[in-house]
Amino acid sequence: MALRETRKYSQGSALGGVNPDLASERQTPSFSVEKLTALLDGGEENTRIRRAVVEAIESDPVFSRENQYFQSQNEKYEAAVRKAVHLQKKVREMGWTENGPEFKYIYRALSGEVALLLHTIFMRSISVLGSDKQIAKWIPLAMQYQLIGSYAQTELGHGTYLQGLETTAVFDIATQEFILNTPQISAMKWWPGDMGRSATHTVVFAQLYVRGKCYGVHPFIVQIRSLWDHSLCPGITAGDIGPKMSFEHIDNGYLMLQNVRVSRENMLSKFCEVQPDGTYVRRGSQQINYLTMTAVRVALISHEAVIPLMKACTIAIRYSVVRRQSKLKPGEEEAKILDFQTQQEKLLPHLAAAYAFHFINNYLQDLFNRGYEEIQRENFNMLPELHAFSSGFKAIVTQYCASAVEVCLRACGGHGYSSLSGLPSLCTRILASCIYEGENTVLFLQTARFLIKCFIAASAGHPVPPSVTYLAAVKPGKCPAKSKFDFLSPDIYTQAYQHAAVRLISSTAAKLQALIQSGVKKHDAWNECTVQLVQAVKAHCHYITVKNFAETVERLETKGGIQQIMKHLCHLFALHGIFSNTGVFLHDGHISGAQMDMVTASYLDLLAVIRKDAVPLVDAFDFTDKTLNSALGSYDGQVYQRLYEWAQKSPTNTQVWMLYYSQATSALARAEIVCFSSNKSYTHKSGIRPFNS
Amino acid sequence: MALRETRKYSQGSALGGVNPDLASERQTPSFSVEKLTALLDGGEENTRIRRAVVEAIESDPVFSRENQYFQSQNEKYEAAVRKAVHLQKKVREMGWTENGPEFKYIYRALSGEVALLLHTIFMRSISVLGSDKQIAKWIPLAMQYQLIGSYAQTELGHGTYLQGLETTAVFDIATQEFILNTPQISAMKWWPGDMGRSATHTVVFAQLYVRGKCYGVHPFIVQIRSLWDHSLCPGITAGDIGPKMSFEHIDNGYLMLQNVRVSRENMLSKFCEVQPDGTYVRRGSQQINYLTMTAVRVALISHEAVIPLMKACTIAIRYSVVRRQSKLKPGEEEAKILDFQTQQEKLLPHLAAAYAFHFINNYLQDLFNRGYEEIQRENFNMLPELHAFSSGFKAIVTQYCASAVEVCLRACGGHGYSSLSGLPSLCTRILASCIYEGENTVLFLQTARFLIKCFIAASAGHPVPPSVTYLAAVKPGKCPAKSKFDFLSPDIYTQAYQHAAVRLISSTAAKLQALIQSGVKKHDAWNECTVQLVQAVKAHCHYITVKNFAETVERLETKGGIQQIMKHLCHLFALHGIFSNTGVFLHDGHISGAQMDMVTASYLDLLAVIRKDAVPLVDAFDFTDKTLNSALGSYDGQVYQRLYEWAQKSPTNTQVWMLYYSQATSALARAEIVCFSSNKSYTHKSGIRPFNS
Repeated sequence: MALRETRKYSQGSALGGVNPDLASERQTPSFSVEKLTALLDGGEENTRIRRAVVEAIESDPVFSRENQYFQSQNEKYEAAVRKAVHLQKKVREMGWTENGPEFKYIYRALSGEVALLLHTIFMRSISVLGSDKQIAKWIPLAMQYQLIGSYAQTELGHGTYLQGLETTAVFDIATQEFILNTPQISAMKWWPGDMGRSATHTVVFAQLYVRGKCYGVHPFIVQIRSLWDHSLCPGITAGDIGPKMSFEHIDNGYLMLQNVRVSRENMLSKFCEVQPDGTYVRRGSQQINYLTMTAVRVALISHEAVIPLMKACTIAIRYSVVRRQSKLKPGEEEAKILDFQTQQEKLLPHLAAAYAFHFINNYLQDLFNRGYEEIQRENFNMLPELHAFSSGFKAIVTQYCASAVEVCLRACGGHGYSSLSGLPSLCTRILASCIYEGENTVLFLQTARFLIKCFIAASAGHPVPPSVTYLAAVKPGKCPAKSKFDFLSPDIYTQAYQHAAVRLISSTAAKLQALIQSGVKKHDAWNECTVQLVQAVKAHCHYITVKNFAETVERLETKGGIQQIMKHLCHLFALHGIFSNTGVFLHDGHISGAQMDMVTASYLDLLAVIRKDAVPLVDAFDFTDKTLNSALGSYDGQVYQRLYEWAQKSPTNTQVWMLYYSQATSALARAEIVCFSSNKSYTHKSGIRPFNS
Repeated sequence: MALRETRKYSQGSALGGVNPDLASERQTPSFSVEKLTALLDGGEENTRIRRAVVEAIESDPVFSRENQYFQSQNEKYEAAVRKAVHLQKKVREMGWTENGPEFKYIYRALSGEVALLLHTIFMRSISVLGSDKQIAKWIPLAMQYQLIGSYAQTELGHGTYLQGLETTAVFDIATQEFILNTPQISAMKWWPGDMGRSATHTVVFAQLYVRGKCYGVHPFIVQIRSLWDHSLCPGITAGDIGPKMSFEHIDNGYLMLQNVRVSRENMLSKFCEVQPDGTYVRRGSQQINYLTMTAVRVALISHEAVIPLMKACTIAIRYSVVRRQSKLKPGEEEAKILDFQTQQEKLLPHLAAAYAFHFINNYLQDLFNRGYEEIQRENFNMLPELHAFSSGFKAIVTQYCASAVEVCLRACGGHGYSSLSGLPSLCTRILASCIYEGENTVLFLQTARFLIKCFIAASAGHPVPPSVTYLAAVKPGKCPAKSKFDFLSPDIYTQAYQHAAVRLISSTAAKLQALIQSGVKKHDAWNECTVQLVQAVKAHCHYITVKNFAETVERLETKGGIQQIMKHLCHLFALHGIFSNTGVFLHDGHISGAQMDMVTASYLDLLAVIRKDAVPLVDAFDFTDKTLNSALGSYDGQVYQRLYEWAQKSPTNTQVWMLYYSQATSALARAEIVCFSSNKSYTHKSGIRPFNS
C-alpha cells in the first residue's frame, strides 16, 4: 500500500523520493489507510470513482493551479472562467451526468476554483420559484449556456434581513411590465457572484408594488448584458466590487437599475403572480424555499469547511514531522516538532475534529435526505428541525474550522505564512464561510429559537423532534468518573455534554421567562439573552457532534484497526472539547475540579497516542499533491526544496521590475529608478565602488 | 470639539457630511474625547506633535495609500521603496531627528508600509556587536545610505533555534579571510526582509570554524550586491521568497553563499574575535544582546498589535452604528447592529482590551527604560525579568489582538470581508506578529521557565523580582462577592486573577516535580507539562494586565469623565476575561457557580454601559481617515457611498480584461476569448439576439 501510494503521489523523483522523516511515519500505522479512505468515501467504489475524477481533472492542463499563488485578481478571474468553460466540455467528454456518481467529486477536484457557479443557483431558483411555463422557457436556454445567470439578492445595505431589501419593482398595467429601480445607493445589489463581469441575466429580488401597494420581496428575471456584445443593457450599471480577502477568482458584482422594464412574465410566479389587471394572487406553500437554503448550507459544510480543514491538517501534520527544531533532550538530534506536546495540542484535536465533522456531515445529509423525501410527500413536519440543524451546524462547523485552519497555519511558523504553503489561501477563504449563506450569529439565534421552543414544549410534556427529546429527560446527577480512564468512556463524556447543553438551554429559557415576567418587553428580553443563547446552541451542537461520533464509531467494523483508531479520535475530540470549555462542565459541579484534572490527564495522554498515527490519519484523507498545492504538505515531504523551486517562479523574481537605487554619495537621497528587466539588463548613470571584499 | 473634528476629518463634503446615525453617537459622550486622546498620547503636547507628523506625511502624495488595495506584490514593493527613499528627504526637510519627539510617530503615520526597515536592524547589530573600529567604518556609510543593509539570520530549516543554523564561516589563515558557505538547501537564508531585491549588504549569522573547530554562531558583514549596478556578487544567489499572506511590500529574501570570502575584519568582534593566527578570543558579557531582542518585542506590541486592534475597533464600531439590519422591535425602524447584544459582545470587550494593552505597553516601556538604565550601569539583574515579560506579553498581546481583529472583520459581515474595509489587510498582517520575533509558543515557554524558577525560589523564601512576589503570598480563600455589583470592584476581580495564576503555576510546578520524582527524565517531564505551562503563563500575563489596568485607572484624574469611563472599561476587560475562561476560576471553587452567574450578569450590564460611549471611545484613538484607509470606518460614516466609489477604481473595472464568451448556440461550448479594453472596445464574430426585454 505504502509503496503504491509512493509511486502514485511522488512527483519528486528529482527531489529525491520521500523524505525519510516522513517515510518513517508511515511504516507502522495501527490501521489500514486504504480502508479508512474507503470509509470516508462511503465505500471502495466511491474511492475509485473519486480518484478517477480527480485524475481526469488534474491531468488536464486547463485545470492546473500551478501558478495560482502568483496571479492577480484579473488573472484569477480569467482562469476561473476558462475552467468553467472547459469544464462543460470535460463533463460531456467524460460522460459525467448530473445524477451520476462522478458529479459530486468535480467541485472537490477543482478545489472550488471555478467561475459561473451562480449559473446553477440561477437555474435552481427558476426551477423552484418559476411557473411551468417559465421553466420551459428559461431552463433550456440556461442548460445550453445561451445565457449566463446570476442571483441578485444581497444589497449594499441589506444582507441577512431580506424583508429590508430596497430595490423596487412597480407594475405598469399600461405596458404589462415591471419597472425596476434602485431607489438609493444602499439599494444597489452588491456581492452577487458572477455578476461583476460575466452574467448576462440575473434573478433580481425586489419589493413588488402594484397600484401603490407593496406586496413584499419577489424574484424577477432581468437581462443585464447584451448577448450580442456583452455590453450593459440600457438602465443597467454594473461592475466588479473589487478585491476581497479571498475568492478573487469570482467577479462578485454590483448592479444598479434605473427604470429597467421587464415583461410581466419575468416575475417568477410559481407561488405569486400579478395578473394582467394588476390582481395579486398567492398560491401554494412557500415552505419549500427553506429546503433550498438548507441544502446549500448542508453542502457547504463539507466543501467549504471540513475539506479545507482536512487539507490544512494534512499540510501542517506532514510538515511537523519533517521540520526539526531544537532538541528535546540535550545531546540528541533536533526533534520533529510534532514531538513537542504543544505542537500536538495545536494540531491533533483539529485532526480529530475533521473526522468528527465529517461524520456529523453524513448525519446531516441523511437527515436532509429523509426530510426531502417527506417533503416530496407534502409532509413539512421535519422542516423546522432541518432548518435549525442546518443553521446551527453551518455556524458551528464553519466557525470551528476557520479557527482550526488558522491554528494549522500558525503551527507551521514562518513557512505557514508563505502563500506557497497553501495555508493562507485556505485560511482567508474559509473565513468567508462564517459570513455567507447566513451570518453565523444570525444562524445560531435561529437555532436558538427552535431549541427554546422545543425546550418549552418538552417541559410541558408535548412531543418534540427526536434530536431534541433529550431536553425533556434532564438528569441532574454528577459525573460518576473515578479515574482518568473512566473518561475514555463515551457514556461518561456524552452524558457530560448532554448535561451541559440542557443546563445552558434551560437556564437561558428561565432567564428569558423571568425578564418577560418582570415586565421587560419580549423583544428586548430576547436581545438581552442572545449572548447566552448562542452559548446554549453551541453546547447543543457540540453534544450532538460528540454523540454522533461515538455512535458512528460503535457501528464500525472492528477489522483493520479502523474502529480502534476512530475510538481514540472520538475520545480526543470529546475530551478536547471539555478541556477547552472547562467552565461549562464545572459550573454546576457536574464535573468536579478533581475530575477535571482527570480529563486533562486523559486528554494529554491521548495526544501521545494519536501522535503515532498522525501521518497515516491525514494520508487517509487522500489528497493529491496537486489538490493540496502546498510546498509544505506534499506526500514526499521535500519541503525546503519545493519552497525554493516555487519561490523562483514568483513574478518578483521573473518580471520586469523597478528599483529605487542610487549612484552617488547618498544612495537614497538621489534615488533614481533603475529598471531591471528579467534578463538582468539595467540602466545606470554612474556608480560607486564597492568598499567591501 | 465635535465640530472641530468634523471639519478636520470630513473628507466627504461631496458625500454629504457626517452620516446622522454616526453623528448622533457623538452628541453626548460621558467624557472629553480630546482629553482621552491626550491621555493615550501621554500629554497634549504629544498629541500636537503626533498630529503634525501625521499631517506632514499624509499631505505628501508620495506617501499616499489610496490605491493600495489594488496593487500587485511588485507594485507594493515599489511603493514601499519609494516611500523609504522619500522618507529620508522628508525627515531632513522637516528637521525630525532620531532622538526628537517626532520620530516615534513616523512609523505609525506610514502604517508601517515602508521598505528598508532592516537597514536600521543592520546598523543596530553593528553598533551592538561591532568593535569601535567596525562601527567607525560601517555606520557612517549606512547613515548616508551608501549601502542598504539587511540582517540574515533565519534559514529555511531554522528559525527559533539559532544554535541549529547551518551556514558556515571557515577561517582561512593563509588569506586572512572567512569563507562562507551554504552547505545544503535547508541552510539557505530565508525570510530576511529587504534582502530579496533591495539590500547590498547583510549581516550573516554562521557557524564559525577555525582549524576545524566549531565556535558556534557568529555575525559577519557580507556584501551581496554590487554598488555599481546592483547585480549579485560572485558566489551569491539571492531573490525574493514570493507571495505571503501579507507584507507584500517587503522583499523578504533568500540567500545562498558559495565560497564567499570576506576579510577577517568583517566578523563583528565586540565580544568575539579571531586573531590573525587563528586564536579565538571571547570578551565581555553578551547579555546585552537580550536587551535588543527585548526592545524589538516591546516596540512591536504597540505598533504591530495594539494599534492595529485600535484601528479594527474604530472601523467595526463606526460601521456598527451606521449599519442597520432587521428590527429589534416589530414596527420600529431597523436597528443599528451595535444595539444587538451579540454585536456588543463581539466588539466592546476588544475595545476594552485595546485600552488594557495600551496601558500594559506603557508599563512594559517603563520597565524596559528602568532596565536599560540599570544595564548602562553594568547591572544585569533585571534582564531575566525583562526578557520574561517582553516574551510573555509579546505572545499574549499579539495572539489576543490577532484574534480580536479577526472578530472585528467578521462582525462587519460581508463588507468586512471586502479589502476596501481595510480589515483583511489588518487581519492578515497582524497574524504574522504571532510568528516573527519569536514564535508565540516558544516565547510562552521561555516565560514559563522564568515563572517556574521564581515560584520555586519564592516557595523556598528566596527573593524574587517584584512583579512575581505574588507567587509567594498565596491566599487560598474564596471570592467574597455576594452580588453582581461586588464584581465591579477591582479588588475582587484582581484577586480572582491572582488566585488563578498562582493555582496554575503551582499545580504545574507540582506536576513537573512529581514526574521527575517518579523517574521521568527532566526534559521529557518538561515537555509533558508544556500545554499546562502555556496556560499558566497566560493566566499570569492576564493577571498583570488586569492589575495594571486597575492601578492605572486609580491614578487617573477624576475630571472630564475620563476616570469613570476607564473604570467601566477596566471592569469590562476583567469580567470578559472571567466570562471567557470560567473554568479557570471555577476549578477549585474560588468563584462558585452562583458567583459566576453574577459575573455574567455584571458583564452583560457593562456592555450596555459602554455601548453608549462606544463611538467616542474609538474616536479618541484619533486615527485619520487616511490612516484607517477603510470604506467602512471613515469619520463621516458614508459607508455605502465610499464602497461604491472605491470599487469603481478596481483594476477589474478599469484594466484591459478578457472574458470567455460566446457568439452562438452554446455560449460556453464554443467559447472564444473576447478582449474588452478599458474603453469597452471589443471583438466578436457573430452574435445571438437578446431574447428578453
